[in-house]
This record gives sequence, C-alpha cells and structure tokens, in this order.
Amino acid sequence: MGYCKTVTFEGKFTLKSGNSFPRITLAYETYGKLNADASNAILIFHALTGDSHVASHAPDDPIGWWEEAVGPGKAYDTNKYFIVCSNILGGCKGSTGPMFINPETGKPYGLQFPVVTIADMVNAQMLLLDHLGIKQVLLASGGSMGGMMALQLAVSHPDRCKNVQILASTGVVSPQSIALNEVARQAIYADPNWNGGDYYADGHPRPDKGLAVARMIEHITYLCEESMQNKFGRNLRGRQQVGYDFQINFEVESYLRYRGETFTHRFDANSLLYVTKAIDYFDIGDGYSSLDEALKRIKARVLIASYSSDWLFPPVQSVSLASAMLRNGIDTTYVEIESNYGHDSFLLEVEKLSELTRDFLESASHHEVSETAKIQSRLQDKRQDHDLILGIIPSGSRVLDLGCGTGELIERLSYEKKAKTRGVDLCEKNVRACISKGLSVRQGNIEEGLRDYPEGEFDYVILSKTIGYLDNPQAVVKEMLRVGKRAIISFENAGYWENRIKAMKGKGMGHTLLSGEPRCRLITLSQFEQFVKSIDAQIERREFLQNGKHIASPEMLDRLVEEYRYLGVEKEEGPALLADTAMYVLKAKSS
Amino acid sequence: MGYCKTVTFEGKFTLKSGNSFPRITLAYETYGKLNADASNAILIFHALTGDSHVASHAPDDPIGWWEEAVGPGKAYDTNKYFIVCSNILGGCKGSTGPMFINPETGKPYGLQFPVVTIADMVNAQMLLLDHLGIKQVLLASGGSMGGMMALQLAVSHPDRCKNVQILASTGVVSPQSIALNEVARQAIYADPNWNGGDYYADGHPRPDKGLAVARMIEHITYLCEESMQNKFGRNLRGRQQVGYDFQINFEVESYLRYRGETFTHRFDANSLLYVTKAIDYFDIGDGYSSLDEALKRIKARVLIASYSSDWLFPPVQSVSLASAMLRNGIDTTYVEIESNYGHDSFLLEVEKLSELTRDFLESASHHEVSETAKIQSRLQDKRQDHDLILGIIPSGSRVLDLGCGTGELIERLSYEKKAKTRGVDLCEKNVRACISKGLSVRQGNIEEGLRDYPEGEFDYVILSKTIGYLDNPQAVVKEMLRVGKRAIISFENAGYWENRIKAMKGKGMGHTLLSGEPRCRLITLSQFEQFVKSIDAQIERREFLQNGKHIASPEMLDRLVEEYRYLGVEKEEGPALLADTAMYVLKAKSS
Repeated sequence: MGYCKTVTFEGKFTLKSGNSFPRITLAYETYGKLNADASNAILIFHALTGDSHVASHAPDDPIGWWEEAVGPGKAYDTNKYFIVCSNILGGCKGSTGPMFINPETGKPYGLQFPVVTIADMVNAQMLLLDHLGIKQVLLASGGSMGGMMALQLAVSHPDRCKNVQILASTGVVSPQSIALNEVARQAIYADPNWNGGDYYADGHPRPDKGLAVARMIEHITYLCEESMQNKFGRNLRGRQQVGYDFQINFEVESYLRYRGETFTHRFDANSLLYVTKAIDYFDIGDGYSSLDEALKRIKARVLIASYSSDWLFPPVQSVSLASAMLRNGIDTTYVEIESNYGHDSFLLEVEKLSELTRDFLESASHHEVSETAKIQSRLQDKRQDHDLILGIIPSGSRVLDLGCGTGELIERLSYEKKAKTRGVDLCEKNVRACISKGLSVRQGNIEEGLRDYPEGEFDYVILSKTIGYLDNPQAVVKEMLRVGKRAIISFENAGYWENRIKAMKGKGMGHTLLSGEPRCRLITLSQFEQFVKSIDAQIERREFLQNGKHIASPEMLDRLVEEYRYLGVEKEEGPALLADTAMYVLKAKSS
Repeated sequence: MGYCKTVTFEGKFTLKSGNSFPRITLAYETYGKLNADASNAILIFHALTGDSHVASHAPDDPIGWWEEAVGPGKAYDTNKYFIVCSNILGGCKGSTGPMFINPETGKPYGLQFPVVTIADMVNAQMLLLDHLGIKQVLLASGGSMGGMMALQLAVSHPDRCKNVQILASTGVVSPQSIALNEVARQAIYADPNWNGGDYYADGHPRPDKGLAVARMIEHITYLCEESMQNKFGRNLRGRQQVGYDFQINFEVESYLRYRGETFTHRFDANSLLYVTKAIDYFDIGDGYSSLDEALKRIKARVLIASYSSDWLFPPVQSVSLASAMLRNGIDTTYVEIESNYGHDSFLLEVEKLSELTRDFLESASHHEVSETAKIQSRLQDKRQDHDLILGIIPSGSRVLDLGCGTGELIERLSYEKKAKTRGVDLCEKNVRACISKGLSVRQGNIEEGLRDYPEGEFDYVILSKTIGYLDNPQAVVKEMLRVGKRAIISFENAGYWENRIKAMKGKGMGHTLLSGEPRCRLITLSQFEQFVKSIDAQIERREFLQNGKHIASPEMLDRLVEEYRYLGVEKEEGPALLADTAMYVLKAKSS
C-alpha cells in the first residue's frame, strides 16, 4: 500500500468520553485531483473492518474494498472528483488504535486505549480535511458503519458537507446489533490468548481462535437466508455424503471457517472490540436534547438507501431515519434497493449504486445550474390535469405529490413555480427516475407514509388520478389534510355521460379482468362529494375537464350544456354528466 | 425430577451412520392416564436444549418448559390424554449421550459418541412407545427441532401417528441455520477446556466460556428485532449513561451474559455439538429417492404452524413444507400465526397454540363421530350460490375452494357430498375457524398459492364471489384449470338491470370510497365471457340467480322476461339483464 499516507496531528484531541490523546495519526489515501476551489471532494467512510484502500491506484496496486465503485468513469469518478478515504480512529490499518504505543507507558495501548465513538472518528477526519485544504466536501458517503459516519458528519459538522449518502445503515443501533456485537466480543474475551487485551509482546500468542469465531458471527449477518441458499444451499464440501463427524461437511461451514481464519491475519482483535463498541454507542440523537434537534442541524441534501434483504440494518431502520429527517424538513430522498445479497448488497450491487450516485451527484450540480433545455425535453408528455394543478398552486409553495411516479408534475412545479417539492412513490424504479431529475422523493406506500410528516408541513398535498387505487382513501385524505393546508385530488368521473351510456348498454364500466388492468374504484362527483363529507372536510374549489379542455367558466358550461342538448342535461347537473375528469381542492373544516 | 423415569433397551441399536450402541437408555416423563385401547397418547418432542420435564407433575414439582401448554384443562389436556415426553438420544438429561460411559472404554464417550440424526432420535422413542404399549399416538407434536422429529415420525413410521403438529420448524435445515450452528460449535472448539471433548474427569475444567458464547448466539436467534426492541430497547443496565468501557452497558448485554452463563450449569457442551449436528443433517427427503417419495409415506393429518416474526425457521420454510405436502396429497393444514416474539413464539404464544391444538385434536375425533347436529347449526347462514354449487358437484369429488373464508362451503361439501375438500385463505383467523371445523386449509394468497398443487389434483376448483378482488384474475383462473378438471366461478353481475339504471342515474356502481369497502372490479356477463376466451378456456355450463332464486330453465327465463316486460328485454339478453348473480363452470379447451 505505497499510496497510503499518514499524517499526525499534534495537540490534544479530546474524545466524547472526556478522555484525550496528546496527538493522533490518520492513515489515508486520495484519488483524483482536488480542483482549484476545493469543491470536488468526496469523503468515503469505510465499514467495520475496512481501511483507506478503497480502490487500487494503479494496475499493479492491490484491489480495494470498493474497487468497482471508485475509479475513472466509475460511480465515484476519479476523473471528476477528489476522493479521500481514511482508516478510522481506533482501527488497525495505520490510524491511531489499540496497537499504537501509549505515550504514557511506552507500550502498546491494548485495553488502555480509550473508547472512541463514531463522532470521535468523524471529528478526527475533519482534521484531515483541514490538512487537505477542504472546507466542505461535495459528498460524504458510506455504507453500514460508514453510513453512520456520513450521518454523524452531516449533524456534527453541517457546513462541511453538501450532500450525504447513507447506505445500508441506521440512525440508531438496535439491540439486536448490540447483541451480535456483544457475542463477537465475548468470543474474543473467551480466548485465553486475548489476555485482557495484552498480547502484543513478541512471541505472545494472539487470540486468533476467538477472533475467528467473532468474524464468523459477523459474516452470517452480512449474508441473508436467500444469499446463503444461492451461494451454498446444502452443498457438501469435497464429499459425496455427510460424514457423521465434526469435520467440515457443508460448504457454508468451509466458507465460515475460511473467512474466520483469514481475518485473523489482517485484523487486530482489540480493534474489533473498540469498533464494535463505537457502533453499539451510535445513536444520532446522542449529545442533543432530542433526535429532532440533532437532525434539524443538517444542511446537506441526504440520500438514504436500504437493501431489501439486509437484516443487519433492515430497510425499516432506514425508513425510520428518513421519516425523522422528513419530519424535520431535511431534503431527504429514500430508496429501497431490491437485492438478495443481504447486508453485503451495498458492496456488491455496485451497478445500481453507481447509477444512484451519479444521478444524485449530477442532480446536485444541476440544482444550481438550471438546465432548462434538458428539463423542457422531458416535459413533452404533459398530463392535462397537470396544467390545471400548476394553475392552482402559487409560486414558492411547499408541495407534496403522492404517487409521484417518475416526477413529471413535481419537476414542473419545481422549475415553473419554484415550489419546494417532495414526492412519495412505491416503486424503486420511479424513485430512481426522480433522483435522476434532482427531485427529493421518499420510497414508500402512501397509505402508510404520510405519518412521517408534521402537521401543516405543506401548502398543498396532491393526489392525482390515484384515489381510485387506494385501499383506504378515507385514511389517506385525512392524513393529506393533516400534513397539508390544502389537498388537491383529481380523478376520472365515472358519471361522465359516455360512461353512463356504456354501463346502460351493459358494456361494463371500469377495468376488465384482463391482465394489466388494476383493480380500481369508480367514482362519480356525487360519490366524491359524499366522501368529502364523511371525512369532515370542505370543498374549496371544483375544476372540471372535458377532452383535456378546462371547463373554466359558467359561460363555457352553458355552451357545453347547449352542445349536448340532446342529452337533456340540466345546468346544475352539467359537470356530473359533462366532465370526464374532476379536480377538487379540499381543506380541513376547522381551518 | 422424581417423576422422571429411565428405561434401558438392551440389544443393538443401529444408527443411520451405520454405527450402533449395544443398548440405549431413555429418560422420560408421562402425564395423565393411557386409556384401555391406548388411543389417547400424545408424544411431545422437545427442542434443542429441552428435556423430558415438559410440565410439573405436582404443585411442589419444578415448572416445565411447556408448563402453560401441558396440564389439566390445558392444550395438551392431561385429563383427557396420556402425554409422553422423552429426553432425546444424544442429550444430557438422562438419555444416552456423550456424558454416558462408553462400554468399550469404561470412560465417558465424549467425542467417541457416534453422530446421531433426527431419525435416530425418533427411532429410539419408538422403543419407548413399545415399552408403554402404544402402537399409534393420537398426536405427535413439537416445535423447532421437536417439529423436525414430529415430521420425521410421520415419514419414518407412518402407522404410528394419527396426527402431527409441526411448529416453528422446517422440512430441511437451511444453510443459514447450519452456519449459526457451526459458529456455536466453533465457540466450543475454541475453548481450551473443551480439550477435544475430553473434559469429564474429576477436577478437569469445563468449556464454560465457549459454551456460554455458543448459547448467546442461539439466544439471538430465538428472539427477533421487534422482540428485542420491546424487551430491551437501548436501555442501560444499572447506569445513567454509557460507560465508555467494556463492562455491561446495555440490558441486552446483561441478558445475554446471564443466559450464557446459567446455561453452562444445566447443559453439556458435547451434547450441544451433537444436537446441533443432528439439526444440520436434517433434510426430510434424506434416505428416500426424493422429497416427494418421503412425504408420500405420510398417513397422518398434518398441522403446520409458523410464526410471523421467526427468522430462524421463517414462515417461508413452513410454506415450502406445506406446499410439498399438498403436492403429494397429504391432508395438510397450514397457518401462520401473527406474533412478535420471534422463534420463541412457539413457547410463548401458548394461548393461540392451545386453541389451535384443541381444535385440531377435537376435529380429529369429530372426523370419526359425525356430529351432524353441531354442523347443521353452523350451516344456517347458507349462501345462496352455495346451494347451486352443491347441486353441480357430484358426491365424492375432490374440491379446492379458493378464498374459503371460515369454511362454510367446504364444510357442506364435506358432509353433504362426502367430498374430499381443501381450502385456501389469506386470513389467519379464517384458517383457524376452518381448523375448528376439522377442515384442511392452507393459509396463503390465492394469487400465489396454486402452484403447490399438481396438475389435475382436483375435480373442481371453486372461486366464489372473489374474482373481482383479484389483482391478476387471468393467472389465477389459468392455474385453477391446471390443478382442477373444472373451475366454478361465481360473481355478481354488474350488468344486472338495477345496476344499469343506478349507473345511468349517476348514482355510481360498485364500492364507494368509504372505509370497509374494498377495491373491486365490476364484471358483466359479456366481459366475463370475453375473459374466458382470453385465457383459452371453454364454458361448460352457465347458471344464473335472481334474488336468490335459480333461473333453472328456459321456461323460468321466459317468465322473467315477461315479468320485466317494461324493460323491453329480448330473450337472448335475458340473463345479462335479469341475473344479479352468475355462475360459470369452465374447463380447459384441450380437455
């Protein structure tokens, strides 16, 4: 690792615990070139047992732990960006850690090393940024423990990062993770060679057996049921049938033993104790009066990604973090990536990660340079009701679009109305399309997802041609009116005269039984208005369309009634019969 | 444990591995009285580290591991049944195991003890049944490893059990379980006191540290994320703030250390090695030419129950076992019990288990003694279309009812038509209601669940007033025609004249937006017939109802057309306008 540099920062470095070091050393590697105004830096944080060697620097350099993601033309493009990755404080790959000499005793620290936290690790790397002349990184990114560091950076040092990526991680470590870490530690303590952490003397045996068991436990948590089935199944290792013995029988046993054993050659047992302890202690609200107070400090745009099969830091924990951020008005995008590699997905699903990162970074710049032409080209397939919605919403409004799809409406609202927009959509692909447009979208089910938002967070909440597909429209619209001052709801009018004739002729209404036709409720204007009463809301405005044309005035309605005089339509029932699409603006009765 | 008896079976006992014991000893306990014809015996199998003491025998007797489930008036009612529970072969609670003296050496077996399998453990207990004069048990039941034993019994000794309950278990142990077991074993191997399994000599230290780590790993797998959150959260143990040290900080750490340590007082490390190995080797197809061949041997009625939060033997594994049984024509009921205790649920959710067991056992007897009166009383709320279906299906048919609800139709088919019925329903509560009626029902989604059944397994597959609620009716009906010779589909006719008038008046059709009204497709006769064409099926029979009355003949239809002459209905469009409910019998085009 000839590309690995070290830098020592003289002077007292105080830890969260109150303990301090007289000086600290960090090992780090950099890739690419820092530009003149130092605005192209990306700080990558490694996970539990990673190091500064995130990728190779040259063909003859060993490959790094995120080789596929870092390099020329890759997700973290070293042609464009200046990438920095440092071994963590407390590690064993060049940075100050338990193997280092304790200046007070002249012997390796061992268990005299003070307990460090994720916040301490991040603080140490701020010294490195100073050293490199970087005031603010364009992006801080990390997976697993690295994601905790990225989050901690955004909270502790809000001015030092413009964007953060938190992958396969959590805002607060769960008791299950603590339990798994504790068992790993107990496996090390149980090894007599560990000797209370004092085993660095020449000739002293190392606690390799305990460390190997600890690593095996960790490896199980990196995989998942499905990835193990795919990778090993019940395949036997080098034999035709089970041996009725305690030798290696199954491939999965062989894998674990190998992983456990090789780990002892590259990692220090004490370091594993310290790093797992730092993870246990991680709770982003810690040190602030509340979680909300901590998250409110964030100034960066945040991208949170979870992986569907990750059971170590499962999607529910990322959802919970994303929800808390949304509740505190942080510009947050959340996406759950479908994957069957378990927790390891953040290292293995590099293609999806690359696309996501590229989109997130590009849209970060495009948030500054408005590329109108690029946007216009996307907007050719405008939906007719969108024009109407744009007409209703005043400039600068705060808008939430439920079932935002690939983001056409909120993109228009963002650019044409300078609205502060947010979206929710169930589909990973749609969310990723939104990210590529620089939109902040939360992946989730709109029947559940609104509880994240505080009361009155939005001026308008939109539900465009989606209400018929909801399982519980009452609950959703009530929630819309809690989180928004106004709700805008559009739907196709089942009572449109052509639909009635079709029904009368027995040609059916709504969707057929054929595939691709979803189950949908049919809604007439009178049914909708009855529904509005049932949720104790009031109608502020009604708008109607026919054949894409807005029925904009009483005179237009008169003309329509006249045009369809053969139907014998009374003027008051005009919209109920003559509008194929309706849009209502609702507000809560009390407001 | 004064109530614990032991019995030694002299004579060679041969294991699956080919090894043998000259004799084996089993420790066991019994509860209640065996009746005269020995027909009331229940054999309970314990899990990994359990023993024969399933419940207390007297107030001053220590409580057992399933105390809440076994006793007078409890699920396994000792007033009615004769309960037998034995410590497994290879265990350390009185049965032959690694602590026993090896007759060849005069010293404890240790690692000289041959590897035993689940099948060996079950075979040993058959000797016990012989000893107790029991040819066939009424029920064999067990959770986790105990469930594997119950399944193995049903396959290896099909004539020795009438009913089996397989709880929180699996038909084949997954690589993830093997991996977890292997790490537990490695923790024991890593303890120098283990000494290759030779530690029984007086004064020799025991591998307590390794065994404690192994047990901690197991304990994590018995809980789940949610149960850990509820039980411990991030609560600190006996302190106000984290200690920045390696003492116990969190309650979950304290719990694990305590569980690990106390375990060493009650269990033998070598025994844990042998029992985990037996679990690793468990694959119910093992020893037969295929899984199907193994399962085909089963004669017992089978109840499989999984628990929603169990990640050690997750519901998907029970589903897979239930599917394989259904595929092989075994009388199988499957239910997924909603619970947030993880794998431990089978021990903790005793109330649900009790109800399930009581229903399963009672319906087992009621399968013999037809309690007509009891059944009739349940059948008062007959659905009109059910009479029609009963009229169509010949006696003795094999029938599958999709979305069977609480089982009214298949109960009638079973008793009135002596049909061999099966049901599928999504809802745990419905499935449990079916179990209480002695019906065999599989919990699951009908949009996925049909793939379990082999081609032509049924004479009739019924979809009664459910097709409108399906997301993909084409796929479901195609599957119905694969697994059944005929499909019977009933639905409400959206083209019924009253519906048409309602639609014409703009009063809407189908369900409203109000809560409790599900999303449903509207179907007219012509739409349905078009749908039948789209899946390349043919209509064998059409039946129509109006106001619960069957339009049974052309004459009746004539009368109806006449009665509704003010509608001006042509005779050929009579049913389309005058039937409020339609029922079709379909078959595949090629058949």
